[in-house]
Amino acid sequence: MTHPFFEGLSPVRYEGPDSDNPLAFRHYDPDAVVMGKRMEEHLRFAVAYWHSFAWEGGDPFGGQTFSRPWYPQDDMAMARVKADCAFDLFDILGQPFFCWHDADIRPEGDSFAESFDRFTQIIDLFEEKMASRKVRLLWGTANMFSHRRWMAGASTNPDPDVFAYAAATVKMCMDATHRLGGQNYVLWGGREGYETLLNTDLASELDHMGRFLNMVVDYQHKIGFEGTILIEPKPQEPSKHQYDFDVATCIGFLRKYGLEGEVKLNIEQGHAILAGHSFEHELALAAAEGMLGSIDMNRNDYQSGWDTDQFPNNTPEVALAYYHILKAGGFGTGGTNFDAKLRRQSLDATDLVAAHVGAMDICARGLKAAAAMLEDGGLESALAERYAGWQTDGAQAMLESDFDSIFARVHAGEVAPQPRSGRQEILENYVNRFV
Amino acid sequence: MTHPFFEGLSPVRYEGPDSDNPLAFRHYDPDAVVMGKRMEEHLRFAVAYWHSFAWEGGDPFGGQTFSRPWYPQDDMAMARVKADCAFDLFDILGQPFFCWHDADIRPEGDSFAESFDRFTQIIDLFEEKMASRKVRLLWGTANMFSHRRWMAGASTNPDPDVFAYAAATVKMCMDATHRLGGQNYVLWGGREGYETLLNTDLASELDHMGRFLNMVVDYQHKIGFEGTILIEPKPQEPSKHQYDFDVATCIGFLRKYGLEGEVKLNIEQGHAILAGHSFEHELALAAAEGMLGSIDMNRNDYQSGWDTDQFPNNTPEVALAYYHILKAGGFGTGGTNFDAKLRRQSLDATDLVAAHVGAMDICARGLKAAAAMLEDGGLESALAERYAGWQTDGAQAMLESDFDSIFARVHAGEVAPQPRSGRQEILENYVNRFV
Amino acid sequence: MTHPFFEGLSPVRYEGPDSDNPLAFRHYDPDAVVMGKRMEEHLRFAVAYWHSFAWEGGDPFGGQTFSRPWYPQDDMAMARVKADCAFDLFDILGQPFFCWHDADIRPEGDSFAESFDRFTQIIDLFEEKMASRKVRLLWGTANMFSHRRWMAGASTNPDPDVFAYAAATVKMCMDATHRLGGQNYVLWGGREGYETLLNTDLASELDHMGRFLNMVVDYQHKIGFEGTILIEPKPQEPSKHQYDFDVATCIGFLRKYGLEGEVKLNIEQGHAILAGHSFEHELALAAAEGMLGSIDMNRNDYQSGWDTDQFPNNTPEVALAYYHILKAGGFGTGGTNFDAKLRRQSLDATDLVAAHVGAMDICARGLKAAAAMLEDGGLESALAERYAGWQTDGAQAMLESDFDSIFARVHAGEVAPQPRSGRQEILENYVNRFV
Amino acid sequence: MTHPFFEGLSPVRYEGPDSDNPLAFRHYDPDAVVMGKRMEEHLRFAVAYWHSFAWEGGDPFGGQTFSRPWYPQDDMAMARVKADCAFDLFDILGQPFFCWHDADIRPEGDSFAESFDRFTQIIDLFEEKMASRKVRLLWGTANMFSHRRWMAGASTNPDPDVFAYAAATVKMCMDATHRLGGQNYVLWGGREGYETLLNTDLASELDHMGRFLNMVVDYQHKIGFEGTILIEPKPQEPSKHQYDFDVATCIGFLRKYGLEGEVKLNIEQGHAILAGHSFEHELALAAAEGMLGSIDMNRNDYQSGWDTDQFPNNTPEVALAYYHILKAGGFGTGGTNFDAKLRRQSLDATDLVAAHVGAMDICARGLKAAAAMLEDGGLESALAERYAGWQTDGAQAMLESDFDSIFARVHAGEVAPQPRSGRQEILENYVNRFV
Repeated sequence: MTHPFFEGLSPVRYEGPDSDNPLAFRHYDPDAVVMGKRMEEHLRFAVAYWHSFAWEGGDPFGGQTFSRPWYPQDDMAMARVKADCAFDLFDILGQPFFCWHDADIRPEGDSFAESFDRFTQIIDLFEEKMASRKVRLLWGTANMFSHRRWMAGASTNPDPDVFAYAAATVKMCMDATHRLGGQNYVLWGGREGYETLLNTDLASELDHMGRFLNMVVDYQHKIGFEGTILIEPKPQEPSKHQYDFDVATCIGFLRKYGLEGEVKLNIEQGHAILAGHSFEHELALAAAEGMLGSIDMNRNDYQSGWDTDQFPNNTPEVALAYYHILKAGGFGTGGTNFDAKLRRQSLDATDLVAAHVGAMDICARGLKAAAAMLEDGGLESALAERYAGWQTDGAQAMLESDFDSIFARVHAGEVAPQPRSGRQEILENYVNRFV
Repeated sequence: MTHPFFEGLSPVRYEGPDSDNPLAFRHYDPDAVVMGKRMEEHLRFAVAYWHSFAWEGGDPFGGQTFSRPWYPQDDMAMARVKADCAFDLFDILGQPFFCWHDADIRPEGDSFAESFDRFTQIIDLFEEKMASRKVRLLWGTANMFSHRRWMAGASTNPDPDVFAYAAATVKMCMDATHRLGGQNYVLWGGREGYETLLNTDLASELDHMGRFLNMVVDYQHKIGFEGTILIEPKPQEPSKHQYDFDVATCIGFLRKYGLEGEVKLNIEQGHAILAGHSFEHELALAAAEGMLGSIDMNRNDYQSGWDTDQFPNNTPEVALAYYHILKAGGFGTGGTNFDAKLRRQSLDATDLVAAHVGAMDICARGLKAAAAMLEDGGLESALAERYAGWQTDGAQAMLESDFDSIFARVHAGEVAPQPRSGRQEILENYVNRFV
Repeated sequence: MTHPFFEGLSPVRYEGPDSDNPLAFRHYDPDAVVMGKRMEEHLRFAVAYWHSFAWEGGDPFGGQTFSRPWYPQDDMAMARVKADCAFDLFDILGQPFFCWHDADIRPEGDSFAESFDRFTQIIDLFEEKMASRKVRLLWGTANMFSHRRWMAGASTNPDPDVFAYAAATVKMCMDATHRLGGQNYVLWGGREGYETLLNTDLASELDHMGRFLNMVVDYQHKIGFEGTILIEPKPQEPSKHQYDFDVATCIGFLRKYGLEGEVKLNIEQGHAILAGHSFEHELALAAAEGMLGSIDMNRNDYQSGWDTDQFPNNTPEVALAYYHILKAGGFGTGGTNFDAKLRRQSLDATDLVAAHVGAMDICARGLKAAAAMLEDGGLESALAERYAGWQTDGAQAMLESDFDSIFARVHAGEVAPQPRSGRQEILENYVNRFV
Repeated sequence: MTHPFFEGLSPVRYEGPDSDNPLAFRHYDPDAVVMGKRMEEHLRFAVAYWHSFAWEGGDPFGGQTFSRPWYPQDDMAMARVKADCAFDLFDILGQPFFCWHDADIRPEGDSFAESFDRFTQIIDLFEEKMASRKVRLLWGTANMFSHRRWMAGASTNPDPDVFAYAAATVKMCMDATHRLGGQNYVLWGGREGYETLLNTDLASELDHMGRFLNMVVDYQHKIGFEGTILIEPKPQEPSKHQYDFDVATCIGFLRKYGLEGEVKLNIEQGHAILAGHSFEHELALAAAEGMLGSIDMNRNDYQSGWDTDQFPNNTPEVALAYYHILKAGGFGTGGTNFDAKLRRQSLDATDLVAAHVGAMDICARGLKAAAAMLEDGGLESALAERYAGWQTDGAQAMLESDFDSIFARVHAGEVAPQPRSGRQEILENYVNRFV
């Protein structure tokens, strides 16, 4: 341990399902092999710097609740204490990755140059810490939503100077991600949207966002960054409407601006729910388009209309998510980032560790259940049987034909479709054998 | 009057805002000129056959409440009585258009051929009735969601025979629409989606839907139908998830399947709300992409999580909708179809007339307010001022540049954006001067 | 078997967790003892006549999808076939209870007297069938929402004649429930509410509803019915607003009309969700007031804004529900009624059996997990520790004191509360050890 | 003007509907007489200190956007500047009331005693400023949700020391409210609820809250405060569940703890919407129980699942709210408090003034429309006609009778209710004549 904050806590071990040690893994055994691959390589867990280290426990009706040795977060010495504690947590959890925004790791400077300098100092520190550890960078990203300069958007701001500031910021973060060997670079546009259409030129804002993302891709190629560029859908909050509303909207956007071969998606459960989708819907749709990149694993309270970013705790839901990920071939450069924060009453260092331990275990249970379903093959065979009609020559010929010829057949009484059971409850029961 | 159902009701007249006659127009004056065009030509009202004539007042917890002379709707004589009464309503309201599904106008037959024959008989009757009236067809469409054969989708059905049945049905409805001089042809995919992903091959269903819509367009060209093909977004209900979720999703879909120049959108307020959008958002987005076709005007109860399809009654909301329509150049072949149904306690013939009268008046008020705002120009000038920075040469040059050159400027301190007020409340107050 | 509808299906047996027989119980073993009581006596499962036998597969956008030997449901012969098939299902599932509405079991007559006569014939038939079986009646109820006479409410109708009709109907159903040895009598007020406040006298409607429920209780005492009278909260659907909105509203209503010692609650998961609550919240609140009566077990799709009434399939959620039920001492006269319907694509007799089997299994898993948590005692001890301060004499004295004396202590600096962790994630992880 | 912050802005005047001055009233004419009373006395507007002066423009994803001369808000000199500017705004708007929490007006001290001393200094200052102005105090309240000590509740905290701290705080605020001649005292329990039931003893928390409110009432009587004690419903946010969920829940709570004659309700539109109700529903229900006290006027974005607290801008909605208030006899000690905040992009002093001007105007339009409807009497006469049946002797006798006698009449065929139209659309059209 570098710092006494996590004093008394040692690296978390796998102890098996019967353990009642709240700080042991009961399901996550990194080296256990599932479908021919170690669990660690399947799940590719990452800890998020922002929620776990930068967020102080505030909400719209109250301020800081946590006490941390790196508060107040407004000088560089504290930023170093924070980094020490963060890497201590990584040592305790043993997860292979972490993620950051620029704003999480350094205090804002008085000028871009000063912010840049501070940022670079922390990146240096990260590089040094990573040299002696296995932990790697899943992705870096730029926080272009917290500072007041971003209040009306980053690349979609009515002021072109903000677009410029955003470009410089993303270049800085991409460079650092590249230097640290990051596997992906993420863009989330929390303020790329609007509060009211009355003051918004939607068409030109979308064009500016499309142009910006093309610049990102151009820059990626220029510097030879081999990771994946990811955008992250969210329908609203903080903005009333966000342009990257959901997976379908993002795919349409990428296609419109010629980026469908360049950019993939980072999909979050909480954001799926806010958009009126299930997590597995968003994953399945991205997979169907070959754009499934990475996930932000968390959960939203179904009763709360905002992004609660809780640690996942429902195995059946998590299992269906990994089922679609495994079916799509698993993560490439992506992984499972815990974009999840403690409840603001969970004040203790132990809470921070236990929350991650529980979440990693839930994901491991979900992964094992998903793998078992795939190995059993029951869902795939049910699907094959349901759509078997489309494998006939006649069906394929029909797809190549036209309305007149089809009409003739139907009018002649040659086609009289009979409904068949969709067997939903039977399939749901099947899934419950595995979760 | 052809039938005594509407006995005692005469054609509705414009009496001006001070009238307290519940069956007079207080705002809708068809011949009044707004921004150089008659109101009737701006608004292009249509009455919907389904809600006003085919729906019997049932809901998920109760059956028929209405008593109508054309019940039970299971023989052709009744279908003719229904048509008589429908055209009586058109005579009373004087609106220029109506709309139908095949299922609204004739009882289902025992075979496709019989259904086709019945359908053709009613289309003959419509043609005859239209010959002596000014009412025209805004659009026709096929009901491919009510009969049990469609329970698992039409073009996206796991059974290719259902695809065939759908193709034949759409051909039939397109032919009839063409024959009656319809201005558009609409497709709404209420069952094109899924109940559970567990039994759904999402990728191939989307491909089948894309292929089907291409067949529609091919057939349009073949028969020389000069109206517009429209698809209609809705996120869910009846299906848990519908593929045409919202405007952004539809646009992405059209682009993926090469149809963005061929097909436009029919946008409904209630569906916008169910998808988590405002009506004006959906209109503005479609307009920004040049795909705004027509509207289904109604309102959803914000407290109810289903599609309540009520007649519009909130002038400020309606005004913002027409503001975006006028700004986009107005309707082309589209119009304002009242996809709205009486509440199931509104039993009387008078209710049916009064509901339309009130809705037409609200739209007229909205249109006049929207026109006044556009003529005043306050919103446009505020927008121009807010985005003025983008009109400079420097901003345009930046858009053509790259991250390195922008970074250099920002790092050198040449760019230090200062937030400016978005003036939302001031703009909202401005709008309230007109509504 | 009385009828061939379920041909080929035999009584469902417990085969243990490793069985892959889709028509065997893997967790529900009626005779297994949990916390000193047989599972069957804990869970007290009931099959609902309406969803499983009266509902034909319709939804707001489509009609009947099922084919059943007792369709069309408009004559008494068919009502007898339906009863035969229902009792066949009860034989197959072996559950101890069933439930009905009057409207489920007999076709409506032309007059109240005829409806009463038909109803009595079927009650006779039920009595006869029950004589040779173990299945008993969990509860009876009156359907006062489907027929058009109820469109504006039953006891809250603007027309006092409808109140009268409701009173007669409930008397009839209470008598039959009493005669069949029913354990409870339920009232659900789907139309006791409003569509618009504009035509509603809310205060007098509430008074009428309060008076009606007092009449129910008076009648219960008069006939010596020893079961429990239950009302069932639901916030909306079919009505825009229902007076029995949620548990808290129902409790307030009962207290206002002097019924808090007479009536308890029948709580449904789907209704809890529609009201913005978790199921366990509603159960815990009712238990805190001593008014937890019975449950309607199902699940609502969190993405759908209406009452989807699906069979339960999420063990963690179900476990928390039974945790609160066990903590409250278990069901008294209540039970677990499956107020759940097949998806409308689940056409086959096998679907109907499998859906119940899966749901019973999920409940059994949930019950076992809840019992294990209670036996372990981890949640109770965490609670005791968290609230320990209130057990001190000082805290109890403070509750009996006043603001002046407390102020003096606080102002003197004697009270300086220090926040302590709420340990939410640790408790969630704890629960996951059991589910 | 005391301070240059609002420099250049003069008192807002009524200029009539045709004015295009964005800083003039177009509808709010304080001295205009509506239904025999001046508009100012009807509407009783109040400006809220918290949103307009304490909130800095932050949201869950971003920090301060506003620049104000009283930032940083952490010393007493700044608190005085803030008070100067607040009273300048009151002078500009001319509204008759304002409202505050303790936390809005003074920086927190290191101890209760220091906080109390600071609070008292500002109350002294308020008293002095009020002496020379007409502005009065509509209500005071205690902020028991922002500081970390309240994170697990105030009166419902698991720690009795927090209950004590809450008692001392409320006594302090009640004393100050009484001293300043406040017309009401409000309690809003943003943290009186829970984040998870797993760590919550719901029954004892409710009892503590009931006891606390009884202490409030005892203290009111002790000091002779003649204003009204008000509690404010909100379903959630910041807590996952709040005990004062909605009006019905609050009424049930007051009745359970014997406070129904002592305490009334402060009802907010945004909170109504979050609870799944319309504002007019909450008002009508409180009025029906004689517990309508005061309103927090604002609006929630229907698309956002959190409390957006926007200034009202929809006349039809506001008119229905004032309709129910006027029907209930108008405000007694209550009033129209703008619990509304600027959007965080609305940076300028002008925005703050204009937002209030627009809101006051919307309320004035709503009031005038509501009064016109009441004077016309159309809704009342429709209601009387709809419920006329209940005025008969027979109907009243039936209410006093029992099930057996009613059954006899119904069974004999003497009662055969015929549905009558609810005329919803006609009534909605009627309302639109006035708004």
